[in-house]
Amino acid sequence: MTVRAIGVLGAGQLARMMALDGFPLGFRFFLYDTSGSPSAGIGTIVSDPHNQQTELADFLRQTDVVTYEFEHLPLDLAERVAASRPLHPNVRALAAGQDRELEKALFTQLGIPTAAYRIARSAAELADAVRSLGLPAVAKSATQGYDGKGQAVIRSLDDVEAAWRTIGHERLIVEQFVTFRRELSILAVRSPAGEIRVYPLAENHHHDGILRYTLAPAPAVTPQLAAQADACIGRLLDHLDYVGVLALELFETTDGNLLANEMAPRVHNSGHWTMNGAATSQFENHLRAITGLPLGDTSPRRPTCMINLIGCQIDLAGVTSLPDCHVHLYDKAPRPGRKVGHINVCADDLDTLHRRVSEALALLPPMVPYPHAPEA
Amino acid sequence: MTVRAIGVLGAGQLARMMALDGFPLGFRFFLYDTSGSPSAGIGTIVSDPHNQQTELADFLRQTDVVTYEFEHLPLDLAERVAASRPLHPNVRALAAGQDRELEKALFTQLGIPTAAYRIARSAAELADAVRSLGLPAVAKSATQGYDGKGQAVIRSLDDVEAAWRTIGHERLIVEQFVTFRRELSILAVRSPAGEIRVYPLAENHHHDGILRYTLAPAPAVTPQLAAQADACIGRLLDHLDYVGVLALELFETTDGNLLANEMAPRVHNSGHWTMNGAATSQFENHLRAITGLPLGDTSPRRPTCMINLIGCQIDLAGVTSLPDCHVHLYDKAPRPGRKVGHINVCADDLDTLHRRVSEALALLPPMVPYPHAPEA
Repeated sequence: MTVRAIGVLGAGQLARMMALDGFPLGFRFFLYDTSGSPSAGIGTIVSDPHNQQTELADFLRQTDVVTYEFEHLPLDLAERVAASRPLHPNVRALAAGQDRELEKALFTQLGIPTAAYRIARSAAELADAVRSLGLPAVAKSATQGYDGKGQAVIRSLDDVEAAWRTIGHERLIVEQFVTFRRELSILAVRSPAGEIRVYPLAENHHHDGILRYTLAPAPAVTPQLAAQADACIGRLLDHLDYVGVLALELFETTDGNLLANEMAPRVHNSGHWTMNGAATSQFENHLRAITGLPLGDTSPRRPTCMINLIGCQIDLAGVTSLPDCHVHLYDKAPRPGRKVGHINVCADDLDTLHRRVSEALALLPPMVPYPHAPEA
Repeated sequence: MTVRAIGVLGAGQLARMMALDGFPLGFRFFLYDTSGSPSAGIGTIVSDPHNQQTELADFLRQTDVVTYEFEHLPLDLAERVAASRPLHPNVRALAAGQDRELEKALFTQLGIPTAAYRIARSAAELADAVRSLGLPAVAKSATQGYDGKGQAVIRSLDDVEAAWRTIGHERLIVEQFVTFRRELSILAVRSPAGEIRVYPLAENHHHDGILRYTLAPAPAVTPQLAAQADACIGRLLDHLDYVGVLALELFETTDGNLLANEMAPRVHNSGHWTMNGAATSQFENHLRAITGLPLGDTSPRRPTCMINLIGCQIDLAGVTSLPDCHVHLYDKAPRPGRKVGHINVCADDLDTLHRRVSEALALLPPMVPYPHAPEA
């Protein structure tokens, strides 16, 4: 089957960037929006603001294949889609990506190292879990969490009641607090025939639970570390019979090992660097996979730093005056904590890159400090 | 003024590619279509199929700045636009770009070498012109010509009557036939403040008047030749107080000099290689110029060959299986002679590039032979 029309569940910036990379391949895009505030700005929006699936049949009729940009979708919606059109990634991957309990069980089943954890369905169970895992611990809502929402760090048993109430969710994952050297992520793409291509590890810097910087390829990665990451994501992809791009967030522990933190069954913010730093962007590779085209080269081209723009407006003239500085705006009104765009800064070597990032930051609204800023 | 909404007169593939490069900068696009068959597929189409300007006020109200993708626009339409919004390039550039008589006079006035020419308003004047210029000669309609349409080569005085009738235009430019070594083009972009950045010379291969291949940067360009081309396009840009991208088609004569053939006051097919082969694409640079942003780097990144897809459908899976082969489809139904897309093939060196182009051609429908194909 020749795929021509791609349906995306969701109409935010990830759908937008998918469409921007997909139009040149001749695809058309239909974006199914249940939020009531689609921001993609391109493609044909099919609007179902009350999430009653009233427009779903019309949407499906127009599409050859369907994907999604957000894993917190009602599973029954995904199942209805999958009954009528190829849905990539499949419902099983979506289910694992939207529920931390399933996700943790999957990591454990596949021998993917992850922090020790327990499930808690009450404040009392949360206290038990903390006692068994030791302090400090991290409690997270089992579902609906993203950008650090629905999480609490528990440093003493006295924190348990407040954490239970603040998260306000009927089921929590409680994890041993991981002391990590740094946060990494790995992205890979798998074709319907099972071919896998892996992007190099990226180094991520979060603040208040929101990604601020991605540096890719991550510096100082040993071949052992890279092989460990490749093996983890490869096992997930094969086990789930996955089609498309998968992201896996990892901690590099102080003793140099990897622990899986969470996965996202979609294109991912920590892969935006690929738009200017890799031979093929994550968006194009996701589309190639779900439409059955050959996968594209995932090799890095040049060291790249992705700077997230959070709730701010930028001086476009300033930033575009810098060499090799690539602006990607999402056409969204700035609100606190809202991702409105990102900037990819590229260079031929890391020292130049760090200097360029600092120059870019000097032209941007105040941000979390860049951890690799050269000494002044 | 912060520009947010860009109006484009025309809604074909050039407007499409402009929009694809402009969305990431946060721009929105309104495309004014007078053809009745807009093909851009993105942006907001404002349709005026009978070219009565009935929708023009509505279009203008939505835009901050206006440009065009096609120089064969009614001048009164351009003047109405320019009376209400900044129009770039300006009406003077448009006028020179749509009338070969004005264009030739401009080349002459600015000391830009061009083939000797005469104007003919009748078959008798055409015969006089041919007698004075010598045989062979080329007759071209003064207006409305593109992709080799409205042209005839006159090899004997007996051809004059037929040429006059076939072209069917009330005013012709008659030129001395130029024996050239190759066809080149140069693109440059100028800012409102007069800053100019020039892309390297590109080598073009036409067949039946339609561009088939562009190889860029053009091989075997001496510094003298490059300087000559830069000077020609710089004089045009400054004289016209031009804002945006300008293309100038040139002949390299057998004695190694340049003759200007024609200019196009817009982004140009022979600049499509910049999408994958230069630091900043011609589309982004055009948008930067017309919105007052700093101009982007015009340096070439890697040798690139642009293959035009003319009236054919391609095996997308085949072409995307090749390394560094970038497909740009226009979402247009194939018809004979119709440009439906292009492919940019890149490589780190020319030999690899020529080999890759040959590999790509093996997967494409039969085409005009690639002049740099390696010996089998």
